[in-house]
Amino acid sequence: MHSRTKITVRYAETDQMGIAHHSNYPIWYEAGRSDFIKLFGTSYSEMEKAGIMTPLLNLTCHFGLPALYDDELIIRTWCITMTAARIVFSYTVKRIEKDGTETELGYGTTEHGFVDSKTLKPCNVKKRLPELYEKINAGVKHLT
Amino acid sequence: MHSRTKITVRYAETDQMGIAHHSNYPIWYEAGRSDFIKLFGTSYSEMEKAGIMTPLLNLTCHFGLPALYDDELIIRTWCITMTAARIVFSYTVKRIEKDGTETELGYGTTEHGFVDSKTLKPCNVKKRLPELYEKINAGVKHLT
Amino acid sequence: MHSRTKITVRYAETDQMGIAHHSNYPIWYEAGRSDFIKLFGTSYSEMEKAGIMTPLLNLTCHFGLPALYDDELIIRTWCITMTAARIVFSYTVKRIEKDGTETELGYGTTEHGFVDSKTLKPCNVKKRLPELYEKINAGVKHLT
Amino acid sequence: MHSRTKITVRYAETDQMGIAHHSNYPIWYEAGRSDFIKLFGTSYSEMEKAGIMTPLLNLTCHFGLPALYDDELIIRTWCITMTAARIVFSYTVKRIEKDGTETELGYGTTEHGFVDSKTLKPCNVKKRLPELYEKINAGVKHLT
Repeated sequence: MHSRTKITVRYAETDQMGIAHHSNYPIWYEAGRSDFIKLFGTSYSEMEKAGIMTPLLNLTCHFGLPALYDDELIIRTWCITMTAARIVFSYTVKRIEKDGTETELGYGTTEHGFVDSKTLKPCNVKKRLPELYEKINAGVKHLT
Repeated sequence: MHSRTKITVRYAETDQMGIAHHSNYPIWYEAGRSDFIKLFGTSYSEMEKAGIMTPLLNLTCHFGLPALYDDELIIRTWCITMTAARIVFSYTVKRIEKDGTETELGYGTTEHGFVDSKTLKPCNVKKRLPELYEKINAGVKHLT
Repeated sequence: MHSRTKITVRYAETDQMGIAHHSNYPIWYEAGRSDFIKLFGTSYSEMEKAGIMTPLLNLTCHFGLPALYDDELIIRTWCITMTAARIVFSYTVKRIEKDGTETELGYGTTEHGFVDSKTLKPCNVKKRLPELYEKINAGVKHLT
Repeated sequence: MHSRTKITVRYAETDQMGIAHHSNYPIWYEAGRSDFIKLFGTSYSEMEKAGIMTPLLNLTCHFGLPALYDDELIIRTWCITMTAARIVFSYTVKRIEKDGTETELGYGTTEHGFVDSKTLKPCNVKKRLPELYEKINAGVKHLT
């Protein structure tokens, strides 16, 4: 249970080293999460309408090989653990080569809390969005 | 009546041409507006709390000379016209050279509407924020 | 002769007004140019390898309706005029609605100079890349 | 031996949650590094002129409290370890409150390799920039 999001590296995303600047990876991860959540029949927009936001608590990124302008990338996203209060996603970034093979450029993780949109205090997603909670956890169990 | 905002060009703002990417200029203009509004004893935060937002309607940027990583820039911001419904700002971007002189790199304008935060419909800022309206217009008259 | 580039609005591209920040439009335009150039059998990467860069001289953006998180956008890009020294592109930004219709959100233009990568001085693209020059100009004539 | 870099949160850096988007933190850390290196009488620009670049290998960010538009932040930067091949920086992000006290919002680390600008292969900074190497290491020893 994972999503694959296609990203083309934008010129504005490069820096004067001639590579995609590292600050773009968390943005690409976020595009990955956006697609991942849609696998479960919902979306970030719908979760926000339901009064739940998922601010970031922790981010890790490992950079192996650089991504270059106009590279076609695949962001592979999956959930590695989820509790009533927190969710952790993992990502790999791969480049699609001209011959169709994929080269891994790096990987990362993000850990998010579930908070109520109005109070910004932690909320129990198991109670607030039980169906989504069960579906994602079923996917997590399948991984392990 | 104008503000001067100091910006140091960030590495992440460069692109593979080795210059500051043009998409940063509207962000620097915005930092300039943020400081300009403070000259009048208020702020964007306070305007938003008062229920007024100022989305962008039109943007123009002219790029003469490039800005480079670690350049010290001055964004000079002033208001060129303001009505009950709209406001137009003008900006110059200058580089502070090692000898203290300033070199003009470019200039631009932004035109904003005043809208109500909740309805997102146009609102009359002359009625909603009469004091700010008078103060800014006094500054505009002084220019002409 | 125009290109159509699909963009999904990223969460990171929104601001606290709840809309896509205007500084993203020049980045989306750039993604449009990147695709437009590919229509002519070349790319920005190949142009840079051939020693030619196209820094921005002027930018205009008109914002009609806001783009929102997760909106599917189409950036339509075409060339409106090209000389040996400069090229002007035009863009429209449209949202693809759920029913498949398209709503225009705004439009803009960018004017670029042709410069030599090493000297950063203007260069004559009609002489340096005659085939590309002819092809793009044939497309421009077709428009008028 | 650490640097303190002042950042004012830009409107463009906020997202529709109403907080500074997490992808800005690595950019702020980078502004911190830029100032830190200057403590040693050199700069990133001079290092790049000397043929050395420091691409990112690993990034970690911990987010405790959100930063908001127009917040005044201090990025505190120091070096926690440095070898001939790699350097690790640590950062704290604090908000300067109205009363002058500082509230810690989060912290992070970045690990960089030293590479040759032309070959992009690892290079020995102890040999290439011995003076900088000694100075930074003296600062690191002072910490422990």
